[in-house]
Amino acid sequence: MHAITIPEPGGPEALVWAEVPDPVPGEGEVLVEVAASAVNRADILQRQGFYDPPPGSSPYPGLEVSGRIAALGAGVSGWAVGDEVCALLSGGGYAEKVAVPAGQLLPVPKGVSLVEAAALPEVVCTVWSNVFMVAHLRPGETLLVHGGSSGIGTMAIQLAKAVGARVAVTAGSKEKLDRCAELGADILVNYREQDFVAELKAATGGAGADVILDNMGAKYLDRNVQALAVNGRLAIIGMQGGVKGELNIGALMSKRAAISATTLRARPTSEKAAIVAAVREHVWPLVDAGHVRPVVDRELPMPAAGEAHTVVEASGHIGKVLLVTP
Amino acid sequence: MHAITIPEPGGPEALVWAEVPDPVPGEGEVLVEVAASAVNRADILQRQGFYDPPPGSSPYPGLEVSGRIAALGAGVSGWAVGDEVCALLSGGGYAEKVAVPAGQLLPVPKGVSLVEAAALPEVVCTVWSNVFMVAHLRPGETLLVHGGSSGIGTMAIQLAKAVGARVAVTAGSKEKLDRCAELGADILVNYREQDFVAELKAATGGAGADVILDNMGAKYLDRNVQALAVNGRLAIIGMQGGVKGELNIGALMSKRAAISATTLRARPTSEKAAIVAAVREHVWPLVDAGHVRPVVDRELPMPAAGEAHTVVEASGHIGKVLLVTP
Repeated sequence: MHAITIPEPGGPEALVWAEVPDPVPGEGEVLVEVAASAVNRADILQRQGFYDPPPGSSPYPGLEVSGRIAALGAGVSGWAVGDEVCALLSGGGYAEKVAVPAGQLLPVPKGVSLVEAAALPEVVCTVWSNVFMVAHLRPGETLLVHGGSSGIGTMAIQLAKAVGARVAVTAGSKEKLDRCAELGADILVNYREQDFVAELKAATGGAGADVILDNMGAKYLDRNVQALAVNGRLAIIGMQGGVKGELNIGALMSKRAAISATTLRARPTSEKAAIVAAVREHVWPLVDAGHVRPVVDRELPMPAAGEAHTVVEASGHIGKVLLVTP
Repeated sequence: MHAITIPEPGGPEALVWAEVPDPVPGEGEVLVEVAASAVNRADILQRQGFYDPPPGSSPYPGLEVSGRIAALGAGVSGWAVGDEVCALLSGGGYAEKVAVPAGQLLPVPKGVSLVEAAALPEVVCTVWSNVFMVAHLRPGETLLVHGGSSGIGTMAIQLAKAVGARVAVTAGSKEKLDRCAELGADILVNYREQDFVAELKAATGGAGADVILDNMGAKYLDRNVQALAVNGRLAIIGMQGGVKGELNIGALMSKRAAISATTLRARPTSEKAAIVAAVREHVWPLVDAGHVRPVVDRELPMPAAGEAHTVVEASGHIGKVLLVTP
């Protein structure tokens, strides 16, 4: 088969479409013939040499795919060769085939094309595990999503609205904020022109956000704590604004608030399977019913993965950038 | 009645036993004739002028009492005049009488004297709400308790052992650590001589603590994050080591860990009642059965509250310092 390899870490040109050995599904795994994968920021860090795949994972980038099951490993039940699926991966999605633990498979939802389904696993699992399983967003509460027009952001808006929450977003342009509004966002903050703490307080009668989904890390830490409501929960899933920041524990305590920080990729297979099972139970019916849709910025051929990375690095996209196998 | 008043903030001498008007129980409240109160660090901060009582609270210090019900306000059921109780307060415990929302009352447990019962409400509610309701300590997990010989610490050790957890403590002397060991602590760290991160890692095969109950805040923030296990939860309930500290979000994320910070006093009556109800359901049977006991350092007459504060400020105590009404 072919896969995107990284002979040497570097810029987008470091991604090389090359012939590599086929993966072999182990016990409890299935082999998926890939229709499409999608770009995540972790792929860019991996390309740059800053994020090695977890032990035992494929060396190729790609944390999600859609495709058809080509073979079943030993001990797999509930799935058949030919099934159309999408899957959460710990790597190896930028390839024509990938071996996946069966617990990380999801059926392609109704009304979603096989290629589009590659836009779902990573964002749905990230949003569901953080905003709902960890931070327990409830109907009537306010969710603040940083980077509202990103793949994660566009899914967080839809899921939060689907459960009856109010949604605030930050983004860097009117075009992006307009798209967030179309997806249901109630409070729109242009972070280049406005202070999100002040805007959020003004829009919530001073209360602030019950849950914040943050991809900025250190740069936003203090302001996120300021923006939290009493009993608020800050869920950090990225550190695009740095790793170490000053925490005002007194402010956190006065709000009886909490901070969590997670990644999906490093979780053991059993935890990934638990998240995928929860997603299938709680989110898939919303997708099947059309209340939640994959948001696809563009589709590029997988050998042009470097071009896709360039788009995502420049934040020139809204939603997910897909890589379609040739 | 008499109460400890604070005419001017200051040292222990600022506490003045004086004649004041009797409190009147409002709707949903009961009037308790106080047998004893107990010293909490918040009382010291209040005496120093750093911690004003929440709006609507008694101006006198004291976050817990034991005593007998002297009168029922309108709309109170389930309690009768003469009942022996202890209670969680938002203030006013250093007094001969105090008015308390009925939802914050607990019966005096079996085998506990009326005076000793004053040692229970604040520590039991703080430990249960943080270690169990927020941080969800589970059987087989490891809890690290800073200040293991404090009132909070001695209760945390007992409750964690009662539910089948392993307990590590820090304290500043062999005498204090010996007392922690008698109460069931498994891992003993003298913070004056040892590094708690290294000791905890060594004692847990490198895993660290699943839950940490912390009273130090900023000073321990970075080391607490280092000491957390994967999926660990840091529960901050005090800031004796400062308010602002550097948080390594990368370290937190690599462990998929979480930090919460709470106070009990500022919670609304409804949340206090929910905690007290959970304590009555889950903790009171353990006290009735003798598995969990109040740990009393000493009893002093309430007019000598200044002397009691001096003891607690010097950390010269193990367990709770009680103030008995004359």
